[in-house]
Amino acid sequence: MRNVYSIGLDVGGTRIAAGLVERKGRIVREAKLSTPKAAGPFAIVDAIVSVVGEITSGIHPSEIAGVGIGLPAQIDFVRQSVEYCTNLPLGGIDMRGLVMSRLKLPVTIDNDGNTAAFGEWRFGAAKGLKDFVMVTLGTGVGGGVFISGKLARGSRGFGGEIGHMVIDVDGPDCPCGGRGHLESFAARPAIVREARAAAATYKGSSITRLAGGDIEAITAEIVIDAANAGDEAAMTVMGHVGDMLGEGLVGLVNVLNPQAILIGGGIGESCPMVAEHATARISAEALAGRRDVRVLIAELGNDAGVAGAAALAFEDHDSREGIH
Amino acid sequence: MRNVYSIGLDVGGTRIAAGLVERKGRIVREAKLSTPKAAGPFAIVDAIVSVVGEITSGIHPSEIAGVGIGLPAQIDFVRQSVEYCTNLPLGGIDMRGLVMSRLKLPVTIDNDGNTAAFGEWRFGAAKGLKDFVMVTLGTGVGGGVFISGKLARGSRGFGGEIGHMVIDVDGPDCPCGGRGHLESFAARPAIVREARAAAATYKGSSITRLAGGDIEAITAEIVIDAANAGDEAAMTVMGHVGDMLGEGLVGLVNVLNPQAILIGGGIGESCPMVAEHATARISAEALAGRRDVRVLIAELGNDAGVAGAAALAFEDHDSREGIH
Repeated sequence: MRNVYSIGLDVGGTRIAAGLVERKGRIVREAKLSTPKAAGPFAIVDAIVSVVGEITSGIHPSEIAGVGIGLPAQIDFVRQSVEYCTNLPLGGIDMRGLVMSRLKLPVTIDNDGNTAAFGEWRFGAAKGLKDFVMVTLGTGVGGGVFISGKLARGSRGFGGEIGHMVIDVDGPDCPCGGRGHLESFAARPAIVREARAAAATYKGSSITRLAGGDIEAITAEIVIDAANAGDEAAMTVMGHVGDMLGEGLVGLVNVLNPQAILIGGGIGESCPMVAEHATARISAEALAGRRDVRVLIAELGNDAGVAGAAALAFEDHDSREGIH
Repeated sequence: MRNVYSIGLDVGGTRIAAGLVERKGRIVREAKLSTPKAAGPFAIVDAIVSVVGEITSGIHPSEIAGVGIGLPAQIDFVRQSVEYCTNLPLGGIDMRGLVMSRLKLPVTIDNDGNTAAFGEWRFGAAKGLKDFVMVTLGTGVGGGVFISGKLARGSRGFGGEIGHMVIDVDGPDCPCGGRGHLESFAARPAIVREARAAAATYKGSSITRLAGGDIEAITAEIVIDAANAGDEAAMTVMGHVGDMLGEGLVGLVNVLNPQAILIGGGIGESCPMVAEHATARISAEALAGRRDVRVLIAELGNDAGVAGAAALAFEDHDSREGIH
């Protein structure tokens, strides 16, 4: 019998999401769990096994094509190994082997920016596109690059780190150790940093009110809510995020000439102003002939990672079985 | 009889180079001509026809697979049309059709950064590589991107404009109208600009002496000669070119994870310090796991464009004939 499901996992710094997914992308069962970050890699494997058990109860293994796992890590896709992982203790750990031996199912791992892009390409806003760039704005800035209908993973599979393009040689420090990278302007910590400064300047800003008067309690979500409600200080901060995103995208548009840019991640999807400002920068500054690149908002939200990882597992299964 | 030659043309802002090229890349005949820039597009077509006539005398048309032309222009590769051209009056001109009707041979046109990258890939320093980025430093900064063994031309064929990545949001104006692009730091005009300032600061610099005491007579070649001879002011200028190139390449290394970076063009090939500084920046600032990307100097020099355009013509011929 041809397998009707695959399992997609999106392992994040704070939570693990798992889905039982049909070939056409419908997530028929879903479960979430906190990531046992402090308890080490084996606890994370235990959590994955337990959440997969939850969504597969009553399903025969022969109905499952495989398991796809998106990790917030640098993955050598060819060797299927976790090379580096900043937010979770997974660097150098054979996640694929460990999960596979416990679940007795084929496992494929990939970077979470790639799985999100893959999900949007198979089931979301990028369906049918051949050349596009997905950028995800959240705790960090990540993404995935599609060239000629394929994920461009690069020579070892490390590709897609869009957050780590230099856009300002004299810019602020980036969590990666570099300086002036897109991530140092357009992710949660940058938003909080800029909002604290803005709240001090714009005395009556609702940022401060929403944070209960405590500047230390400001979060990116508070800033976005305030910006979406028209607060001037918050709009300045989020507009700047969009401008800086646009500067990074100008380079990618000029180098890769994509049909579309897909903006996703928690920040990208909840604050329309970000995409608007980025689009304006691209229209003004990209080389002639490519200024009309479509800027789209990702459609699948948090499901992109789960659906994309599952799609990856289907693809891996089909290529093993010679199905096209 | 299987065609043994193709014709490669490298059309630049100042000269047109043509070569009769064998399948393995040997240029058996070569000719050059000044580009009749001011005389309009038809004069350029005439020049191409005349230079091709010169190198094909005595060769039967059946021995020629086709003609490849590299142009300093934005080419819609799919439609084979010249969309934009800053340095020559070719924008909107059907160069392929015009040359084809005169020569009665199949013609393929492409951007000159792409043909150079293609040449180095087939016959030069990038032979056998699947994922690499070529960057050419000259009057402008251009290049070509190879992904999985193919030129990544993008959705319309405009890809590879590496000179137009933003690396300094507050940087100097770029000839394209943008600001702080790599080209505004690493091409001839930027070198001259910085060298004039440096010559004013470093009073005894040999830059001024080599320019005959006239600061207005400084050229990029003078600065490179002085830098290669150890002049401090010139080394500062060329070191900075390499640093800024490195900043742009950090982004490409992080986004595309190439096996190698190929540095070419007149500036890149004649001043080793540029590649050295760029390599140091990449080693220090790229994400872990990709700092060991190989930085290579292009091997074919000015021949890369001719050989690459010819290789493109062979490829086009072979795909028409179903030869693989």
